[in-house]
Amino acid sequence: MTHFIAVDIGGTQLRAACYVDDQRTPAYIDKIATQGPSTTPLERLIGLIAGIWPGDNCVEAIGVAAAGPTDPFAGILLDAPNIPGWDDFPLRQFLEDRFGVPVSLGNDANLAALGEWQYGSGKGYHHMIYITVSTGIGAGIIVDDRLLLGARGLAAELGHTSIVPDGPMCGCGRRGHLESMAAGPAIARWAEEQLNQGIPSILPAGQPLTAKDVGMAAFKGDQLAIEAIARSGHFLGKALANFVHIFNPTRVIIGGGVSRCGPLLLDPMRESLAEHVISHHYIDDLTIATAALGDEAGLMGALALAHGHAHK
Amino acid sequence: MTHFIAVDIGGTQLRAACYVDDQRTPAYIDKIATQGPSTTPLERLIGLIAGIWPGDNCVEAIGVAAAGPTDPFAGILLDAPNIPGWDDFPLRQFLEDRFGVPVSLGNDANLAALGEWQYGSGKGYHHMIYITVSTGIGAGIIVDDRLLLGARGLAAELGHTSIVPDGPMCGCGRRGHLESMAAGPAIARWAEEQLNQGIPSILPAGQPLTAKDVGMAAFKGDQLAIEAIARSGHFLGKALANFVHIFNPTRVIIGGGVSRCGPLLLDPMRESLAEHVISHHYIDDLTIATAALGDEAGLMGALALAHGHAHK
Repeated sequence: MTHFIAVDIGGTQLRAACYVDDQRTPAYIDKIATQGPSTTPLERLIGLIAGIWPGDNCVEAIGVAAAGPTDPFAGILLDAPNIPGWDDFPLRQFLEDRFGVPVSLGNDANLAALGEWQYGSGKGYHHMIYITVSTGIGAGIIVDDRLLLGARGLAAELGHTSIVPDGPMCGCGRRGHLESMAAGPAIARWAEEQLNQGIPSILPAGQPLTAKDVGMAAFKGDQLAIEAIARSGHFLGKALANFVHIFNPTRVIIGGGVSRCGPLLLDPMRESLAEHVISHHYIDDLTIATAALGDEAGLMGALALAHGHAHK
Repeated sequence: MTHFIAVDIGGTQLRAACYVDDQRTPAYIDKIATQGPSTTPLERLIGLIAGIWPGDNCVEAIGVAAAGPTDPFAGILLDAPNIPGWDDFPLRQFLEDRFGVPVSLGNDANLAALGEWQYGSGKGYHHMIYITVSTGIGAGIIVDDRLLLGARGLAAELGHTSIVPDGPMCGCGRRGHLESMAAGPAIARWAEEQLNQGIPSILPAGQPLTAKDVGMAAFKGDQLAIEAIARSGHFLGKALANFVHIFNPTRVIIGGGVSRCGPLLLDPMRESLAEHVISHHYIDDLTIATAALGDEAGLMGALALAHGHAHK
């Protein structure tokens, strides 16, 4: 038996799984909070991987998905949001020294796209855009059967493209990005603003909301909540028109927590896309779907990376 | 001797050139207006190619650059602006039947990018964005040493990405696209508006201007004209921030008539780009240059295509 290890490094949680041969269901899987009282994130990561390491020591490769900008060619985490001290951190070298097997790493949204393309909603498509909409907006793009990385692995930041000049401040410090208009916090903020203006809703006024609160109210038929989700879909569709003009894909996949709103998000998105494309040619052969792998997408992408590395 | 034929089909002009072996200077070159009183554009194209056909009949392949959306896989012109009757026109099959050699075709801006990458300002770069700014804005993108085409060859329409919602009407019928904000007509229109408001300038008020008029006034130091060019550079830089977040290239090339303004366009563009990128990583290794091939870029791209086809 040959094993492959997949690791997903998030700001709040570390996950690791061990897969046998070509299987897609992990033989072992474990998770731990990224930060803890008595150990560093690196110690916790090492312990997590050691804990799922197979007894026969027969590991072919490790694939790592990491939040934040990552240089997959140099194997370096460039900025690790929420993990102090991990900027410009040569994680690949460190893990290779520690575990003695080849290690590959990549940005988690990029790898989630790779996961969906290999094992999920993107199977069989040669040109695919994956967008994950949650607290932020990440993305990954398949161009002609290959993951778009760019010169240093920093490509596919679709969430950080400007769609409304001088719009709201984005998490990155710039204004009017898609992320600042359509991600979860933008949905919650708009709903709060409407409540403050006295618009009737089952949502409570005068207290902080989450996108999940809004999503649940929308499922119950609350008009304000439905409009808040639709507004996000509208901006996504508008930005998607730009992206299909740039990539001419045949598949678009929407993942992340906000995608759980399903048609409440996707129908307005499709309408807005159709309204903004410059030619029907861009949508004639285009299908749009929600992600199939859910929270597993990053881990599955790391697995695909581990397999790819092992096959090189 | 082996010959390669390159053809550039524009709305106003048809050009064809015959190259020997690996040479980049044409052995023969000719041009003709696309439309004429007594012959159809197709007859004119056939006559033009026949006129530069080598006497030894030893032609390896024909490469064709065509204005407008083109399906390079099917060899079809999808919409031919300014050439009535050429919509959904199977030009590849037609030319192969007529001339008996393999024919490849592509969109002219895509192929201009290919030309700059093979023979011009983009040589040696693996990740490159080429933008041509003239009456419209076209583009072509090299991703990992390959021309980005998308599923049906409709990719890289960077000029038709929205940067100002509800901005001015674009040639495509949508609003606020980069083309409507930064191409030649937008420069001329903004200068006219300023003149109408009484802003002093050496440019004549109350009459239609061209971007060339504005460019020449800018070279002479006219402040209004300099601002009109800088404004285009500003929007280009802002859009370019989106594009480098999407592609993470190491080379950006600006071509087309408006690029002749040189630093008057490129300096404000660089400033605006630096202001809008989310991280210095995107511009640390990025160089920006004007195109090297000028009006020959499309023809050179068609030549590259002919060579590529012949080598397949």
